[in-house]
Amino acid sequence: MKPNVLGIDIGGTNIEIGIVTEDGQILKTFHYPTKQFPTAQDFAKTLQNIINQTKDYNIIGIGIGAPTANFFTGQIEYAPNLQWKGIVPLEKLVNQATNLPTKITNDANAVAHAELRFGAGKNLDNFTVLTLGTGLGSGIVVNHKVLYGSHGLAGEFGHTQVDPNGRLCNCGRKGCLETYVSIRGIMLTYKELGGKQDLTPKQIFELAKNNDPIALQTYRKTAQILGSQLADLVHLFDPQAIFLYGGIAHAHELIIPTARDEMERNLLNAFKNKVQIKPSQLLDKQGAILGAAALIWENLKN
Amino acid sequence: MKPNVLGIDIGGTNIEIGIVTEDGQILKTFHYPTKQFPTAQDFAKTLQNIINQTKDYNIIGIGIGAPTANFFTGQIEYAPNLQWKGIVPLEKLVNQATNLPTKITNDANAVAHAELRFGAGKNLDNFTVLTLGTGLGSGIVVNHKVLYGSHGLAGEFGHTQVDPNGRLCNCGRKGCLETYVSIRGIMLTYKELGGKQDLTPKQIFELAKNNDPIALQTYRKTAQILGSQLADLVHLFDPQAIFLYGGIAHAHELIIPTARDEMERNLLNAFKNKVQIKPSQLLDKQGAILGAAALIWENLKN
Repeated sequence: MKPNVLGIDIGGTNIEIGIVTEDGQILKTFHYPTKQFPTAQDFAKTLQNIINQTKDYNIIGIGIGAPTANFFTGQIEYAPNLQWKGIVPLEKLVNQATNLPTKITNDANAVAHAELRFGAGKNLDNFTVLTLGTGLGSGIVVNHKVLYGSHGLAGEFGHTQVDPNGRLCNCGRKGCLETYVSIRGIMLTYKELGGKQDLTPKQIFELAKNNDPIALQTYRKTAQILGSQLADLVHLFDPQAIFLYGGIAHAHELIIPTARDEMERNLLNAFKNKVQIKPSQLLDKQGAILGAAALIWENLKN
Repeated sequence: MKPNVLGIDIGGTNIEIGIVTEDGQILKTFHYPTKQFPTAQDFAKTLQNIINQTKDYNIIGIGIGAPTANFFTGQIEYAPNLQWKGIVPLEKLVNQATNLPTKITNDANAVAHAELRFGAGKNLDNFTVLTLGTGLGSGIVVNHKVLYGSHGLAGEFGHTQVDPNGRLCNCGRKGCLETYVSIRGIMLTYKELGGKQDLTPKQIFELAKNNDPIALQTYRKTAQILGSQLADLVHLFDPQAIFLYGGIAHAHELIIPTARDEMERNLLNAFKNKVQIKPSQLLDKQGAILGAAALIWENLKN
């Protein structure tokens, strides 16, 4: 069989694993609750078993996307939502357990790798992916490469400060973008605007489609905050496109037009009408698996 | 004689020209008031004369830094402070007049090219240069290359919005960073804080060194605004260093400690204590000339 790689998406709740071909087909998937692995060593052993049981698939490498995973150090570093605490040398542990080339990166950068290799970014040199979920992650592509900066930390758009007196963020600071533009942010905005119940963004989206004024205003406000901050992002990176990925991106019909208007209104003249905002075409959950797999395919320089 | 290049810095008031060696020595300089050239064609003719009169210097190319000059198009595009209006195809005009390879870029990016080739950025992969003058320009280096984005527009940090209800900017928007952190910004802050006269930043700096409270507070406020915005820049680019260049950077002893404290206070934990803020070691005015010259030396791939 032609060579394949494992693409792994480690989340706070679930771990999704796919066997991925060179052209981005997912041949087989595995699914585990994250809690099943008290330590990263336990997880590495399970990967060893998977590799042994799938010899037919000719697996030649393992790519992993995980929260706070650092592409340069190969470590997961103080992930607040994982039970693996502190600094976890995951790349080394998996490599030792499986004897296969292993690369890790954070979950948002993984989606950027997926767009670059398998998605709408294939023919773009400069674009940004925003992963809109519990928080707001971002992967920034410059000159057809994912931007890592000097310590593997670059691309933290979600913690741009929108308002120094704004909502308290999990990071300890106030007014970060992700306190507004995320699942939690949308739920809180809905309540602040007078919504009577605790509703999910999906429920609020359904209400908005039925012209509920509070729900509509919730999405409008969310999109305005996003759009105004996107203007500053565009001033810095001059990208060709911005892709929205993740749970909230499903509401793109409510978010994108307003975000685009607000972004354009805030752009310097030279930048106007040059950048597209689009929903990612990568299917949910598959983006991170494909991106993790892309880490290995990229390194093979094929 | 070994080959040399012309490095040219076009400003609203003066044009400075230097004959620059491959290792960044300026052998000879020329100086013109910008108003001497009603059109860019007039300027190109003068360059033709210079080239003819300096055959001994073996000049093999011409690099130019100018406001709103676009590296990709070779044009100066609607420069508000130049008498050459509209779109000016300067690269083409100079190339046709002199028959020499010509490259142009904007003034702040020119300084980034200078740091990269001749300055403190020689051994750095990721850094940012801020040019603090009438406005706030920036040149951003990623993976040892100046960032241009998809239309040559990237790196406009000076128009990041600090306050949507803030000071009116020349760009037509409100609250841009350069309305606070620039010559004009410092002068206005001094007046707002109760300063009785119209003083230049240099005069305010002298007062601050003599412990004048309004002058000290002026620099403190300027540095705080800069530092808080630098945190967001560092979250996006994860640079090794930030260099301050230009008139206001002379006051670095008043600006940098406060800006650094404010930046560190606003950084996510993973980013703390990793990035340096330093005054540029490039001499004033020479930075833009050297950077313009670097455009040519870089292209020769020597």
